[in-house]
Amino acid sequence: MELKTAFPRSHEHRELEWACAIHGGAGAIPRTASEETVKQYREGLSGILADGIEMLSAGAAAIEVVEALVIAFEENELFNAGRGAVYTSDARHELDAAIMDGLTGRSGSVAGVRRVRNPVRLARAVLDSNDHMFYAGEGADRFAEARGLERVENRYFDTAHRYRALCEAQGQNTVLLDHDQGYGTVGAVVRDRAGNLAAATSTGGMTNKAPGRVGDTPLIGAGTYAANGLAAVSATGRGEAFMRHMVAYDLCARMRYCGTALEDAAHDIVMSEMEAGDGGIIAVDHAGTIVMPFNSPGMYRAAADSSGNSVVAIWDPPRPTSDTQ
Amino acid sequence: MELKTAFPRSHEHRELEWACAIHGGAGAIPRTASEETVKQYREGLSGILADGIEMLSAGAAAIEVVEALVIAFEENELFNAGRGAVYTSDARHELDAAIMDGLTGRSGSVAGVRRVRNPVRLARAVLDSNDHMFYAGEGADRFAEARGLERVENRYFDTAHRYRALCEAQGQNTVLLDHDQGYGTVGAVVRDRAGNLAAATSTGGMTNKAPGRVGDTPLIGAGTYAANGLAAVSATGRGEAFMRHMVAYDLCARMRYCGTALEDAAHDIVMSEMEAGDGGIIAVDHAGTIVMPFNSPGMYRAAADSSGNSVVAIWDPPRPTSDTQ
Repeated sequence: MELKTAFPRSHEHRELEWACAIHGGAGAIPRTASEETVKQYREGLSGILADGIEMLSAGAAAIEVVEALVIAFEENELFNAGRGAVYTSDARHELDAAIMDGLTGRSGSVAGVRRVRNPVRLARAVLDSNDHMFYAGEGADRFAEARGLERVENRYFDTAHRYRALCEAQGQNTVLLDHDQGYGTVGAVVRDRAGNLAAATSTGGMTNKAPGRVGDTPLIGAGTYAANGLAAVSATGRGEAFMRHMVAYDLCARMRYCGTALEDAAHDIVMSEMEAGDGGIIAVDHAGTIVMPFNSPGMYRAAADSSGNSVVAIWDPPRPTSDTQ
Repeated sequence: MELKTAFPRSHEHRELEWACAIHGGAGAIPRTASEETVKQYREGLSGILADGIEMLSAGAAAIEVVEALVIAFEENELFNAGRGAVYTSDARHELDAAIMDGLTGRSGSVAGVRRVRNPVRLARAVLDSNDHMFYAGEGADRFAEARGLERVENRYFDTAHRYRALCEAQGQNTVLLDHDQGYGTVGAVVRDRAGNLAAATSTGGMTNKAPGRVGDTPLIGAGTYAANGLAAVSATGRGEAFMRHMVAYDLCARMRYCGTALEDAAHDIVMSEMEAGDGGIIAVDHAGTIVMPFNSPGMYRAAADSSGNSVVAIWDPPRPTSDTQ
């Protein structure tokens, strides 16, 4: 499986005003899924991408756009973040999220959140607090309450399809990821008109995970990172692999210290350093180049830039369909 | 303030069997502290260093040594980890720890632990589980119980001097770090006879911190990192600064991608990239070279290697005393 640069290379040499990529997780539905199911996921991705295009065309800041797009994923129960999150082994939901502003280097992370409707909004509130950078567990929910964020009961996150997945996982006594071949996380990376970068990621974790388990999503440098002049990165997959390789930061370190291009650094990390099946990343660099490499069977993803390019895809190579894959 | 390489450079060219460094936090007592107080801290450091020397001389593995030395710090109430940990704003204790094995790349992290006597032992149990890598909050305590680790009531961590610090902090409505000018964390880095590297870090966090706040200590790549062939690193100081700069991983990235020597990479990061007062690190490379740079007024630290070098120090430059600083 080879690296997929989102758009043809010729665009690298054009001055882009903005660029945007989103992912809905490396735990994609199988290629044998029904047309109706495929359509639902593609429409979900297309709608969120359209929001990004609209905001960025209007001049919105990268940090605002990544937060808004991840909120849109959290509101869509197809994806494993916010409503639609998977269940822990005690049949509850614990949500993780992070957001990072490449302009200021500031970030906010939350882990094990149970009562906040939009975990990425809480991560943003942590970033904006300009004090601590990471809250976990009950303290994260209390911070959310102190900041007046919308509170929900934990059962707000319940969905029938995720509960079925929990029953299956417990029947097999395994920790399942989103869909049996994959992993569920959502994320967005943006280069805005001002040239600023930002990244955000949110997840419900893994079906039947132990309560308290923290994956790579909220860990700055592992699942999420953004630095102006380098890149913005959001990862999805087997969290422990992304933590071990410090994937999001390592991509930026290779660009900074070796002068490696985004495409080459991303390819090396995802296709050579990581193991097949671990997952993938979306990333955008300072010039607006977008890459979306993954080494799993699929990754829900979409991207667009100011030159009019846009793409929505699930598998690699894409399954032939009537519209653009 | 300049970089302190622990031992004279001539030792770089000698084949070292083993090397070991420990820190008790960048929040050191003021230089005006009484001789008695200084003596207590120096004896604490010397005793723990002696344990390390004994284990490494006998051929113990790096991962075993860093765990044992951090446990010794956790048992010593002078230092802000385990017993002696500072108080959160709700007058409780929440403990964070991490450990990483440079040989296997495996790590274990815990955050917000309340009922485990030795958080670094729990981090080690997470590492050994070879499954999840990070547990936070109540789930971390539950994991500890499932693994049969020694459980204590939260008040076991109570000490009068830390409670006074909480009252002072709440009186001033600030978040105090260990001692008013600094930060408290403990850590150990080791290069063993087999050439393997390991690092471990443990902390009680900051006095009057918000419940749920996670600092850099348990975050692999920020406050703790180890990779054979590169370096083992443990940080102490303003956690958010270490998280933003991904200090522990960045040190290894500069060595790996730029071929920078440990001393130069550590100096650049601590003395140029970070801000004065942020704190410091201890690190050892594959050849057994030890560095302990810090940009705060002091850092409790000690180091030894198989060539017979050893040092115990608090400030920089050292306060003149009758024994070696």
